[in-house]
Amino acid sequence: MSTACVIVIGNEILSGRTQDVNLNWLASQLNAVGVRLREARVIPDVPEIIIKTVNECRAVYDYVFTTGGIGPTHDDITSECISQAFGVPYERHKEAEALLVKHYSPDMLNEARLKMADMPRGATLIPNPVSTAPGYIIGNVYVMAGVPRIMQAMFDGIKHTLKGGKPVLSITISIFLTEGTIAKGLTEIQNRFSDVEIGSYPFVRNNKLGTSLVCRHTDSSLLEQVKGELISFITSLGGEPFIEDAA
Amino acid sequence: MSTACVIVIGNEILSGRTQDVNLNWLASQLNAVGVRLREARVIPDVPEIIIKTVNECRAVYDYVFTTGGIGPTHDDITSECISQAFGVPYERHKEAEALLVKHYSPDMLNEARLKMADMPRGATLIPNPVSTAPGYIIGNVYVMAGVPRIMQAMFDGIKHTLKGGKPVLSITISIFLTEGTIAKGLTEIQNRFSDVEIGSYPFVRNNKLGTSLVCRHTDSSLLEQVKGELISFITSLGGEPFIEDAA
Repeated sequence: MSTACVIVIGNEILSGRTQDVNLNWLASQLNAVGVRLREARVIPDVPEIIIKTVNECRAVYDYVFTTGGIGPTHDDITSECISQAFGVPYERHKEAEALLVKHYSPDMLNEARLKMADMPRGATLIPNPVSTAPGYIIGNVYVMAGVPRIMQAMFDGIKHTLKGGKPVLSITISIFLTEGTIAKGLTEIQNRFSDVEIGSYPFVRNNKLGTSLVCRHTDSSLLEQVKGELISFITSLGGEPFIEDAA
Repeated sequence: MSTACVIVIGNEILSGRTQDVNLNWLASQLNAVGVRLREARVIPDVPEIIIKTVNECRAVYDYVFTTGGIGPTHDDITSECISQAFGVPYERHKEAEALLVKHYSPDMLNEARLKMADMPRGATLIPNPVSTAPGYIIGNVYVMAGVPRIMQAMFDGIKHTLKGGKPVLSITISIFLTEGTIAKGLTEIQNRFSDVEIGSYPFVRNNKLGTSLVCRHTDSSLLEQVKGELISFITSLGGEPFIEDAA
């Protein structure tokens, strides 16, 4: 199964001004196409940090997705940094330029907007059906906008090209028993089904403490087996399991 | 000014099941006490990744805050990994154990719950006023729960001990002009006030496109100066600036 890393670029996330929502959306989407998101990094608009992070991550993961920093203003430095990370010239991309020339009226097409066509040499464009200025792919790095609606449209345009595996399915079983009560039996089930990822997450609902058990695997029949085991186990403790989503 | 990194530990964030909210909250809090959050990483429940990430980050930043993985179930492996990262024994912390013994009735205090007192040797406890099982500090690493309400209570208990600097103040000026229109003049102002971080963020409100300019610095009089410059500049373009938050 191929692996991915998301790099969220932007001071506004690290200052607390903006709640990032791109990571969560990309995580679900990647999961659905069978690409395993293994890490995410949130980094500031600092050239050396962007360059270092991109180079570290592209060496480790099959896919790297960046969000943010490809607009027209002075703090949009992602493309220049990606060029440096790849050691290629940062230059005007003719095809991207043509898109901007077509989109903007001549009095609107200033140098700042044209900067959105400056990219690392060798970039392949990712269409932007929302506001034209494209993202791009270079090597295994997918460079996308930070505005969620634009980022999502960009990802939708390329996701069919990703080499994923079987999508990871999940079953969630919830109970009004606390983690400490079920931990021992749960460990035994996890040990018997070591291939299935079983996550345990406490919750509070209607002022009652409970636990959600999330089982993840590509094989739905294996998940059904684990589900059966978990239900028997929970019932044996006097709990009433309820299924929240099925594979 | 001291620097910090947040490490969010948990498969549920990377699978898209859970939207992380801890990073945003910690970012605001750290900003308010004058600690600069420079990076965040989101990593899975995989021992070698946790160990490597903790060691990388604690070598680079003044403070490292981890969230997640300190509960009683099999997937709570943070403390064992932190012990390995520091090369110290993973063992029962007497003071933490005493807290759990006091909190739970004898029939509730099983081995799984006692696991929450297993920590790296040398850990200093962080109180948990919500559900007792404590977090802890080892070296410059602050290990906290993943449940937001508990994590927040833990952080509130230790934030006065952090060696911060002056809090970073911010002024946000918004306008219904797009980034491409203001980019050039904005760059000039940024160049003249290179110490002030000026971020430019597009938005859509009432179906109208606009830009928020966020100016950040510890010095309020310097921010007032930049604000004056930005207002003159925007007004000269026919825009009507409105101030969204003041220093």
